[in-house]
Amino acid sequence: MAKKRNKKAHKKIGSVPGSVIYTGNKESKELFIEVFDYNHDKFLEKQLNKVEDTFDFKLNDCVSWINLNGLNHVDSIEKLGLHFNLHPLVLEDIVNISQRPKIDEYEDYIFLVLKMLYYDGDENIISEQVSFILGPNYVLSFQESEGDVFDSVRDRIRQGKGRVRTMNADYLLYILMDSIIDYYFNVIETLGYKIEDLETDIFLGNVENTINKDIRDLKKEILRVRRAIFPLREVISRIEKHDSHLIASTTKNYYRDIYDHLIQVSENIDIYREMIWSLMDMYMTTISNKMNEVMKVLTIMASIFIPLTFIAGIYGMNFDYIPELHFKYSYFILWGVMIMLFVAMLIYFKRKKWL
Amino acid sequence: MAKKRNKKAHKKIGSVPGSVIYTGNKESKELFIEVFDYNHDKFLEKQLNKVEDTFDFKLNDCVSWINLNGLNHVDSIEKLGLHFNLHPLVLEDIVNISQRPKIDEYEDYIFLVLKMLYYDGDENIISEQVSFILGPNYVLSFQESEGDVFDSVRDRIRQGKGRVRTMNADYLLYILMDSIIDYYFNVIETLGYKIEDLETDIFLGNVENTINKDIRDLKKEILRVRRAIFPLREVISRIEKHDSHLIASTTKNYYRDIYDHLIQVSENIDIYREMIWSLMDMYMTTISNKMNEVMKVLTIMASIFIPLTFIAGIYGMNFDYIPELHFKYSYFILWGVMIMLFVAMLIYFKRKKWL
Amino acid sequence: MAKKRNKKAHKKIGSVPGSVIYTGNKESKELFIEVFDYNHDKFLEKQLNKVEDTFDFKLNDCVSWINLNGLNHVDSIEKLGLHFNLHPLVLEDIVNISQRPKIDEYEDYIFLVLKMLYYDGDENIISEQVSFILGPNYVLSFQESEGDVFDSVRDRIRQGKGRVRTMNADYLLYILMDSIIDYYFNVIETLGYKIEDLETDIFLGNVENTINKDIRDLKKEILRVRRAIFPLREVISRIEKHDSHLIASTTKNYYRDIYDHLIQVSENIDIYREMIWSLMDMYMTTISNKMNEVMKVLTIMASIFIPLTFIAGIYGMNFDYIPELHFKYSYFILWGVMIMLFVAMLIYFKRKKWL
Amino acid sequence: MAKKRNKKAHKKIGSVPGSVIYTGNKESKELFIEVFDYNHDKFLEKQLNKVEDTFDFKLNDCVSWINLNGLNHVDSIEKLGLHFNLHPLVLEDIVNISQRPKIDEYEDYIFLVLKMLYYDGDENIISEQVSFILGPNYVLSFQESEGDVFDSVRDRIRQGKGRVRTMNADYLLYILMDSIIDYYFNVIETLGYKIEDLETDIFLGNVENTINKDIRDLKKEILRVRRAIFPLREVISRIEKHDSHLIASTTKNYYRDIYDHLIQVSENIDIYREMIWSLMDMYMTTISNKMNEVMKVLTIMASIFIPLTFIAGIYGMNFDYIPELHFKYSYFILWGVMIMLFVAMLIYFKRKKWL
Amino acid sequence: MAKKRNKKAHKKIGSVPGSVIYTGNKESKELFIEVFDYNHDKFLEKQLNKVEDTFDFKLNDCVSWINLNGLNHVDSIEKLGLHFNLHPLVLEDIVNISQRPKIDEYEDYIFLVLKMLYYDGDENIISEQVSFILGPNYVLSFQESEGDVFDSVRDRIRQGKGRVRTMNADYLLYILMDSIIDYYFNVIETLGYKIEDLETDIFLGNVENTINKDIRDLKKEILRVRRAIFPLREVISRIEKHDSHLIASTTKNYYRDIYDHLIQVSENIDIYREMIWSLMDMYMTTISNKMNEVMKVLTIMASIFIPLTFIAGIYGMNFDYIPELHFKYSYFILWGVMIMLFVAMLIYFKRKKWL
Ligand SMILES: [Mg+2]
Ligand SMILES: [Mg+2]
Ligand SMILES: [Mg+2]
Ligand SMILES: [Mg+2]
Ligand SMILES: [Mg+2]
Ligand SMILES: [Mg+2]
Ligand SMILES: [Mg+2]
Ligand SMILES: [Mg+2]
Ligand SMILES: [Mg+2]
Ligand SMILES: [Mg+2]
Ligand SMILES: [Mg+2]
Ligand SMILES: [Mg+2]
Ligand SMILES: [Mg+2]
Ligand SMILES: [Mg+2]
Ligand SMILES: [Mg+2]
Ligand SMILES: [Mg+2]
Ligand SMILES: [Mg+2]
Ligand SMILES: [Mg+2]
Ligand SMILES: [Mg+2]
Ligand SMILES: [Mg+2]
Ligand SMILES: [Mg+2]
Ligand SMILES: [Mg+2]
Ligand SMILES: [Mg+2]
Ligand SMILES: [Mg+2]
Ligand SMILES: [Mg+2]
Ligand SMILES: [Mg+2]
Ligand SMILES: [Mg+2]
Ligand SMILES: [Mg+2]
Ligand SMILES: [Mg+2]
Ligand SMILES: [Mg+2]
Ligand SMILES: [Mg+2]
Repeated sequence: MAKKRNKKAHKKIGSVPGSVIYTGNKESKELFIEVFDYNHDKFLEKQLNKVEDTFDFKLNDCVSWINLNGLNHVDSIEKLGLHFNLHPLVLEDIVNISQRPKIDEYEDYIFLVLKMLYYDGDENIISEQVSFILGPNYVLSFQESEGDVFDSVRDRIRQGKGRVRTMNADYLLYILMDSIIDYYFNVIETLGYKIEDLETDIFLGNVENTINKDIRDLKKEILRVRRAIFPLREVISRIEKHDSHLIASTTKNYYRDIYDHLIQVSENIDIYREMIWSLMDMYMTTISNKMNEVMKVLTIMASIFIPLTFIAGIYGMNFDYIPELHFKYSYFILWGVMIMLFVAMLIYFKRKKWL
Repeated sequence: MAKKRNKKAHKKIGSVPGSVIYTGNKESKELFIEVFDYNHDKFLEKQLNKVEDTFDFKLNDCVSWINLNGLNHVDSIEKLGLHFNLHPLVLEDIVNISQRPKIDEYEDYIFLVLKMLYYDGDENIISEQVSFILGPNYVLSFQESEGDVFDSVRDRIRQGKGRVRTMNADYLLYILMDSIIDYYFNVIETLGYKIEDLETDIFLGNVENTINKDIRDLKKEILRVRRAIFPLREVISRIEKHDSHLIASTTKNYYRDIYDHLIQVSENIDIYREMIWSLMDMYMTTISNKMNEVMKVLTIMASIFIPLTFIAGIYGMNFDYIPELHFKYSYFILWGVMIMLFVAMLIYFKRKKWL
Repeated sequence: MAKKRNKKAHKKIGSVPGSVIYTGNKESKELFIEVFDYNHDKFLEKQLNKVEDTFDFKLNDCVSWINLNGLNHVDSIEKLGLHFNLHPLVLEDIVNISQRPKIDEYEDYIFLVLKMLYYDGDENIISEQVSFILGPNYVLSFQESEGDVFDSVRDRIRQGKGRVRTMNADYLLYILMDSIIDYYFNVIETLGYKIEDLETDIFLGNVENTINKDIRDLKKEILRVRRAIFPLREVISRIEKHDSHLIASTTKNYYRDIYDHLIQVSENIDIYREMIWSLMDMYMTTISNKMNEVMKVLTIMASIFIPLTFIAGIYGMNFDYIPELHFKYSYFILWGVMIMLFVAMLIYFKRKKWL
Repeated sequence: MAKKRNKKAHKKIGSVPGSVIYTGNKESKELFIEVFDYNHDKFLEKQLNKVEDTFDFKLNDCVSWINLNGLNHVDSIEKLGLHFNLHPLVLEDIVNISQRPKIDEYEDYIFLVLKMLYYDGDENIISEQVSFILGPNYVLSFQESEGDVFDSVRDRIRQGKGRVRTMNADYLLYILMDSIIDYYFNVIETLGYKIEDLETDIFLGNVENTINKDIRDLKKEILRVRRAIFPLREVISRIEKHDSHLIASTTKNYYRDIYDHLIQVSENIDIYREMIWSLMDMYMTTISNKMNEVMKVLTIMASIFIPLTFIAGIYGMNFDYIPELHFKYSYFILWGVMIMLFVAMLIYFKRKKWL
Repeated sequence: MAKKRNKKAHKKIGSVPGSVIYTGNKESKELFIEVFDYNHDKFLEKQLNKVEDTFDFKLNDCVSWINLNGLNHVDSIEKLGLHFNLHPLVLEDIVNISQRPKIDEYEDYIFLVLKMLYYDGDENIISEQVSFILGPNYVLSFQESEGDVFDSVRDRIRQGKGRVRTMNADYLLYILMDSIIDYYFNVIETLGYKIEDLETDIFLGNVENTINKDIRDLKKEILRVRRAIFPLREVISRIEKHDSHLIASTTKNYYRDIYDHLIQVSENIDIYREMIWSLMDMYMTTISNKMNEVMKVLTIMASIFIPLTFIAGIYGMNFDYIPELHFKYSYFILWGVMIMLFVAMLIYFKRKKWL
């Protein structure tokens, strides 16, 4: 068992630094490259599958968004890297899908890693890594596979909605990141509902051991979300403070806005985290309350019938001389006594509020 | 179910940044605009319902307080924004009622978001977002709907009480914020009483599962209050450090005073938070104490009557030769033995302090 | 009920900032003003009850300590404030007895708020607010009512003990604060004893629900003490860093000394806090241990007598043909068997260490 | 016992500072020295066992990696230290195998201590201390004994893979550290599996006391790993900020990369830590659930049969006049009643969901 | 009782600042003064009991270590203070044995307070306060009574071992502090063993209430050790940063080394602290496991014998017409049935793993 476990981790051990090794799921995905090239009055949308076809967009004077899907195509990524002059360590991080969110500032470009988060139909969180390169008038984006949260951005570029067509690549990067962060709100809202469902469950006295698993799964989910989102705060605040030709000072207002969103998401995550953590204590008290209830039933039954059984036992004894046995109404008197005892017990337990 | 849940969150996803989209309750509220225009010897109070009627107050040389109620009237707010030269992101935040408290400093105005908190008749916390724009000699305020905590401010302006009529717009903003923060004290005091009530309940041995819900509700309440109040500390301390023509250095003493109030409120919140968190442990021990009591009743009953029943069982046996059965006083002797056993047991449990 | 609760909090809501409103107990206390006026060779002690009589001490060239008792006399305090040129916000804080410890530095004086803490005869903590104004050669102090921890300071001034008569007002302020902080040690020492008493109680197996209340009361006590003492650390460290003519650099060594004391007190408070917090867990395990004991008694009684009763039941059956019933020594043999079973059980439970 | 315990700790007490005393396992290990000497076109690999044979590599103009195994050979280490001009405190730290990870910057070399971590076959963590000296064109490394995680580095040097042969000693140090940190990922991944195994165990209702030990062992393991890894973050960030001729600014990109790895490892450790800590609560609720189950069985059995036994007892009484005894169908009617009672009870417990 | 408690604390209340009042155990201890006076070739060791005899060592050109034992001799300490020009607040701190570790830097000397910690024969921690004055070429040390951890230092000075005789007073202070810190390792190692012993105890199922006390005592011990050691880190780091003629920059390497040791000790303390805190949870689960075991015994006994007793009761009834009573083999058949029931029950409980 130990052997099987270590396989995945070993696969990068001993590799040369800067090795472009894709760490994700190896099932063959098609390479798919999208290009949006635009300025105030021109607009071009292309779908390519050879990386060389994107090279001309580097130096043209429109804003270009080159969106590459399929991180398993490491050769293409390396070619792109060469053309766009990317550091080997950057390429290594792009294809390492467990890279944590970060920003690295290079001479002529900024490199960013983020996590896209969204729920699938079954309310499982899907996390996909997206890397961005912000150059003078282009944005490169790298995704593990097709499908993302950028459709509204595509629409805005195509239809010239909002400011995007009049702005530079720094604004394009901003609206891409804004789209990602908008989905974070969605994710944490769903998390909030899940917590409430679990609370209701526990409150209704559900004490089965599956609650343990549910709480634990929620804990893990929130820890995953937290790890994807929290490092991003520092990333964005670094962008705000970054002093370069790549990000105009007027665009920084917009980055400050998504920083503000991130703080709000983070606060919510920490609140949910506290709520989940204390669910366990709530669960424990519910179990104990249930046990109290069980114990009360037992105690009431035993306290009522054990003394009565004792009395019956007394008159089942075979002594030669037990005077009560021979009185005519003994049996009925005894029933009377036993019923009175029974009622007295009931009143006693009623007073103790056990009934 | 999952689908229904996600509706609200989705509504802003994909919107253009700077979109002025009201995120609150859409029921049609009337637009209601109040204007106070004053200086040392002039005073004018107006109630308007067209936003254009406020435009003249921007440049006159009195201090003007323009108080707009009804965030659902986004068109009017956008017109106002245009006239007062507000950034689209500011307008977006004004109508997003789940914006966290914050301050943004622009060239010619300061933008602030706060939460008004007060209890309604049933001791539920009401939270309403208020946004302020502080300009050179005007204050704009934006509320979701009519009704606020500013009545004492209105009176002071009308009647010239205190310093307000002799001071500039920065002082007006201060007394508005001071009014809001005064109510925070009220809110946390009520929270304190609620905690004490719950403590008393638990202490009196109330172990029902509803306590779980009450503790949980209090936890959520304090987390909500905390989230509304804590970010404000940074907001106020930024005002103090802010170096501009908009806030006079003599007015900063006053902002320092409300900062001091906020710290005091925050300290109280953290103390209450600790108290609520440890209520759960107190509840748990109370449950366990109750169970101990139940167990003692059971153990006493069983320990006393099971041995006696055994003895009775012995003499209910049908062996041909049981000598004791034939002695004349056996039955009475047995009663004596059983009563002595009974008393011995009682003494034993008395000594153990179970009785 | 809700209405009654909110009374106190409402009383300041809506008041003009800088309103001098006494928030303490309104029972009429006499105004009582003490003056100590001294230098190296002169000494004067006076007891006054009109505030105007203190005005001359402001500008004379001796060190003057003006100690005013009776915060309900707001008019007198306002007059004093006017003469000594105090900011309205300072006066507001002086009479607001729930002001947190703080320091405010003004042009020509320093304003400080502290809490005096001491235990009364019943070991309840008494907390009284003291405010100080340090001017060029005077110290004003404001107390809610007569009675304080400054008697040793009075003696030292009268008798010229120590350095006080040769030093300036900054040193006078120091020894007043030092007296207050000396009492803090007393308070936390008593807290330590209370914790130990409670520990002993729990350890001796006291599991009554009153322990819950005792732990809770101690928690609240330590939170109160903490809130009174912790903010003072920043106050003192601000004095050390304060660069003005009011505090001589040679006096700062003394302030560093009380800072050192405060750190020591704070460390102790945090240790006691941890000890109290973990008392609850200790209490919980004690309850569980007790329950274990109860359960063992029950289990031993039931395990021994239920099988024996079963055996007796067997031979109480009325079957026509039960051979054992007719053997002569059956009854005695059965007793033998039952006694052996009984002894076997005892040995079993002894081995399990339940006996 | 006390005496025996203190032996090990005493062994260094009272020693002169800078004493080179090996604190590890004293079993005699062979001294084994490896040398790699290379530049772009030359390559030399040697295995020595006399320390003097390495002296020439200090000043030659190739990059030299001198890897010494066997910290018990303190004399050889002192000789090496003398030749390479190492501070006595450095030598003391090299042979003290419980030194925490650290960096010390000296005039002409940098001294680093790290921990190599890897799992052995039985999934026990092996921790071995490695010290590095980075000089102008050499790297010295010191290991307790042979066997390490550097085989891939050796291969790369031999075969000229990657950049190593074209770079200086600072890059050599980097790939050595990178190899160590790559193994950290492996270690924490295995930790993650262990936690999941334990979770599954607890979730399946395993409540034996050995779980306690397993949780505790995992806690200790994670604390050990944490202590080995966390201080390294500061070490690496000091390298990045270090301004000297020893580390080229182009190499710092690489150190930033391993810093990034370390942060990722650290985040994972903290997440696992939280998961382990809350395992205890999960275990506790599982125990309580089990007890609930036990109690239910007992309560059901007792509640059903104790009343029935009472009824049987009634008709076992020997009163002369019990009318029911003489009716022909009494016995069968009684069976009917008892079966009905039995069924009623079953339904009752079914409704309560205890069955 | 309250009165008795407060005695000790009151003793310093109201004293003049700078009062040299010994707060330790007043039993008369002899004043004992040791002097070591040395340089590279001279060495003198003296034992004195009059403080005046040490005065000449202040200005001679050897390094002098003046070690005074007996803090109750406040007059002598005041005389020494006068001659060596020490501030009254320094003298006050020297004799106040509950002073927390600290450093105060004066014009011509540095003042340090530390705690010596070691275990006595019964593994109780002994804590003794040591104060140091570092002057230009002398070190004064003050101990409560004779007996310390400096014997190895004395030996090194006498025999000229190590660097000490060639170095200045700053190095002497270093080796004295190093000796103290070496003992800290010893103390925390023993703490580690105590924790392990307690773990084993709990793990072996020891659930008596004394465990509560043991855990609590360990908690207090670690809090005491922590309080003695943690403030020292800041003290040492202040020495490193201290820029004066008193500490040579070459000596600072040595202070950095003991800072490193302190961090290592601190990390261990925090790990042990976590381990002790979680012992309580481990104890709680052990108690609950024990209770589960007790409950199982009870439930098994009751579940097996209560139904059997019921059956026996049935055939003990005295109905005139119970057909089974008259069949010849009824009794034996019943035994068969009961044994089968018994076995079925055993199998059931075996399957549930309760047996
Ligand atoms: Mg690698
Ligand atoms: Mg790498
Ligand atoms: Mg990388
Ligand atoms: Mg990540
Ligand atoms: Mg995708
Ligand atoms: Mg818990
Ligand atoms: Mg807990
Ligand atoms: Mg958006
Ligand atoms: Mg936005
Ligand atoms: Mg916004
Ligand atoms: Mg908010
Ligand atoms: Mg409103
Ligand atoms: Mg708990
Ligand atoms: Mg107010
Ligand atoms: Mg105020
Ligand atoms: Mg105030
Ligand atoms: Mg306070
Ligand atoms: Mg007073
Ligand atoms: Mg607990
Ligand atoms: Mg040493
Ligand atoms: Mg050392
Ligand atoms: Mg060392
Ligand atoms: Mg270590
Ligand atoms: Mg090795
Ligand atoms: Mg627990
Ligand atoms: Mg004092
Ligand atoms: Mg003092
Ligand atoms: Mg002192
Ligand atoms: Mg001593
Ligand atoms: Mg060292
Ligand atoms: Mg706990």
